[in-house]
Amino acid sequence: MHDRFLRACRREPTDVTPVWFMRQAGRYMPEYMAVRKKHSLMDICRTPELALEVTLQPLAAFAMDAAILFADILLILEPMGAPFEFVAGEGPVVNQPVHSRADVEKLRICDPEESLPWVLEAVRLIRRELDGKTPLIGFAGGPFTVASYLVEGGKSSNYQKTKALMWQEPETWNLLMGKMSEVIRRYLRAQIDAGAQAVQLFDSWVGALSLQDYRQLVQPHVSGILQDVMSTGVPVIHFGTNTAHLLEAQREAGGTVIGVDWRIDLPIAWDRIGPDYAIQGNLDPLLLCAPPELAVERSRQLLDQVGGRPGHIFNLGHGIVPTTPVDTVKAVVDAVHEHRCG
Amino acid sequence: MHDRFLRACRREPTDVTPVWFMRQAGRYMPEYMAVRKKHSLMDICRTPELALEVTLQPLAAFAMDAAILFADILLILEPMGAPFEFVAGEGPVVNQPVHSRADVEKLRICDPEESLPWVLEAVRLIRRELDGKTPLIGFAGGPFTVASYLVEGGKSSNYQKTKALMWQEPETWNLLMGKMSEVIRRYLRAQIDAGAQAVQLFDSWVGALSLQDYRQLVQPHVSGILQDVMSTGVPVIHFGTNTAHLLEAQREAGGTVIGVDWRIDLPIAWDRIGPDYAIQGNLDPLLLCAPPELAVERSRQLLDQVGGRPGHIFNLGHGIVPTTPVDTVKAVVDAVHEHRCG
Repeated sequence: MHDRFLRACRREPTDVTPVWFMRQAGRYMPEYMAVRKKHSLMDICRTPELALEVTLQPLAAFAMDAAILFADILLILEPMGAPFEFVAGEGPVVNQPVHSRADVEKLRICDPEESLPWVLEAVRLIRRELDGKTPLIGFAGGPFTVASYLVEGGKSSNYQKTKALMWQEPETWNLLMGKMSEVIRRYLRAQIDAGAQAVQLFDSWVGALSLQDYRQLVQPHVSGILQDVMSTGVPVIHFGTNTAHLLEAQREAGGTVIGVDWRIDLPIAWDRIGPDYAIQGNLDPLLLCAPPELAVERSRQLLDQVGGRPGHIFNLGHGIVPTTPVDTVKAVVDAVHEHRCG
Repeated sequence: MHDRFLRACRREPTDVTPVWFMRQAGRYMPEYMAVRKKHSLMDICRTPELALEVTLQPLAAFAMDAAILFADILLILEPMGAPFEFVAGEGPVVNQPVHSRADVEKLRICDPEESLPWVLEAVRLIRRELDGKTPLIGFAGGPFTVASYLVEGGKSSNYQKTKALMWQEPETWNLLMGKMSEVIRRYLRAQIDAGAQAVQLFDSWVGALSLQDYRQLVQPHVSGILQDVMSTGVPVIHFGTNTAHLLEAQREAGGTVIGVDWRIDLPIAWDRIGPDYAIQGNLDPLLLCAPPELAVERSRQLLDQVGGRPGHIFNLGHGIVPTTPVDTVKAVVDAVHEHRCG
């Protein structure tokens, strides 16, 4: 079994540094666009055979050391009672954003085994197809991150409504975060039960919070999810962007691996997180749109900085952007595998 | 003379902590909206009497310890040869974004004394009107921040075009940053010559860069501006958002005072910046839209954390948002002045 990725999660030595990329199955790949021509994003998520096909595309094209389930962090919203749709050019739009205590009370703590069976079926299909050759990562959004879409009604630049709810009605906020976190916990557990060999919590937007707000209003909920999921023994990647001020608090909340964005120097981040954690990151995803020689050079510099210390999983600092050339992805993945420190 | 603010810039003891707010003259004030009903933003900037009127509005309404010139960081673009306009709901739109070497070569290193005389006249008018009662802060945008509007054609969420230029054509980038920085340096010098008693460099978007990119491609230019402006002896505030990973590099570039956003704990930031610098910040601006008691409580907590150490200028972590209630602004400003540590 090709187990570089899982060994690195446990900080065990590996022959070379494992690599996978967030959003590695996506719009930058012609194979993916061919599927998207015939099927909507939601159709792909809801059809296990399509999710399987798309999940495997980057493994066929590049020497990725892990597969990540093709899905979306917002899938839990519909069974919770908050349907949304993807609007071209706008991103996700939640039909009835949540603003009041009554709105939050109406949200259902759904059971993902019942309400998202197609995701779990996709996990089983992918595991069967991979046949132990490449490990499969499952994932969910973090409670703040998913709640921000629910409260704002979609993407936001400053999370004004989310913060207003958090500060104006802390009890409503805690009820919302509690419901969200219980669904996320169950969802990650269900993916693990279905065969996911690691899971990542994408708390992508939590970096918009001050350290104080994170600690008081978000961390206890994230901790509840992560401590439970970690007790399964499966590696848990705890990821956020813009979190250079939150690293210690995120580590306290939990995770076997801490995922950092491109902003912070990875060795500095690892020093702060401490030796008992693996680390994932952190090339600027836009570097994949730079000249390929530069993307490769920067990747090598990053690997040299880490110096081959066990526990580093090479990744981008956030998802691949749609304009990324596939040749640069290939060049960087190969460069990571060919790299020898020194 | 009411000199709390200037004393704090020099880390001298003050009776109470000085306070002013970024964008303190702005859309949240009915007095400002009354002027905007009759005049466009550009009209206000270009008419010294209107700029004076608007600059003084927050001083009449609140006990602010500093005035900040009413202007916009993009004003230098038109005399450089890159006109722009403010489009409702979209923000600034640059008519012909800069993409190539030829575009950058065409940019003029203008002389703000000649090309932006109305800004300097506004500075003189405001100084005369303030008559030594409140110090006046001048300002400019940082070269990366202003360049990002020029290259993207407006606001951006990920600075993809700006980073592409930076990485694909580093010589063109350095030419652009060099021209930009020389104009910014002259512009800040001209504001000081006209009477500004302190200046702030708003490098607001520089936190989108990795530490490595900041050091290699931006810091030398920022340093060139700040070291020259600091040699005048006037306090220089060096501000950015999302810079928890850049604080040491920003300090090295220069500034008498380092301005930090709300994300990082202010005492942690100050420890990292070191005792030879004053610090400005850092309440989350959206807290001014929370219940006023909470905004006041959080302000007091911040002041208690600092413990009255000389060199703290109370401010928000970024500009006031338009939906801010004026009563909360008043409550926070007064609470800062009434606060006694311990």
